[in-house]
Amino acid sequence: MNRVDHIGIAVASLEETLPYYTDTLGLTLLAIEEVESEQVKVAFLDGGNVKLELLEPLSEKSAIHQFIDKKGQGIHHVAFGVTSIQDRLNELKVNGVRLINEQPKQGAGGAQVAFLHPKSSHGVLYELCEKQKGETK
Amino acid sequence: MNRVDHIGIAVASLEETLPYYTDTLGLTLLAIEEVESEQVKVAFLDGGNVKLELLEPLSEKSAIHQFIDKKGQGIHHVAFGVTSIQDRLNELKVNGVRLINEQPKQGAGGAQVAFLHPKSSHGVLYELCEKQKGETK
Repeated sequence: MNRVDHIGIAVASLEETLPYYTDTLGLTLLAIEEVESEQVKVAFLDGGNVKLELLEPLSEKSAIHQFIDKKGQGIHHVAFGVTSIQDRLNELKVNGVRLINEQPKQGAGGAQVAFLHPKSSHGVLYELCEKQKGETK
Repeated sequence: MNRVDHIGIAVASLEETLPYYTDTLGLTLLAIEEVESEQVKVAFLDGGNVKLELLEPLSEKSAIHQFIDKKGQGIHHVAFGVTSIQDRLNELKVNGVRLINEQPKQGAGGAQVAFLHPKSSHGVLYELCEKQKGETK
């Protein structure tokens, strides 16, 4: 939990939302990627010290679709960058934290990711995120 | 909009929530402060590159009370650190962004703060935040 890697934001449409971030707020678009397993299309923006991750659902099966359906567009999660993600998950579990993913799974940018349950985190959905070796963003 | 200063998180009780952040997640508590004008008690935690700002309502008049009442505890806003906050607000207004505060007001830590309306920001409540001279956190 040494730094915040990104802030995840649920949006209905990247096409409709990106101009606000790039033209109005003046942030730089870093990458766009589809994560098939999560049924999302992801855009990373450079927030200076932390990335903003805009998440558009690709189908009704996507958790992001369900989130928008229930709560509307908005901030979805905060991701901490970690090393040795499996060790971190094991430690949290021993400390009584409820985990959505007990083992990490593949996320955007080839990172290993896992989510903590908001019931344990007082309403916040936290992600742990371990980058591949050599990955800088 | 050169960096993210902090992530604001609405909590029902700092007393009940802080041990999770300090003992379980291992973050360092930086400061606790009451902001009378906003009717909130605020705890800043060191997230490495960005601060987490936990916000507990002090009365039913607090916007944080209303947020929790409506949506439950969770992520409330993302604050961009800026210089010349009034100039930034004027530019945003010219670009058609709806502002909650057209003039900055005093926030936690003596900062000048203003919020953009989530209707303009595709569901996200963004804050602009200008630190006092010499302020490092």
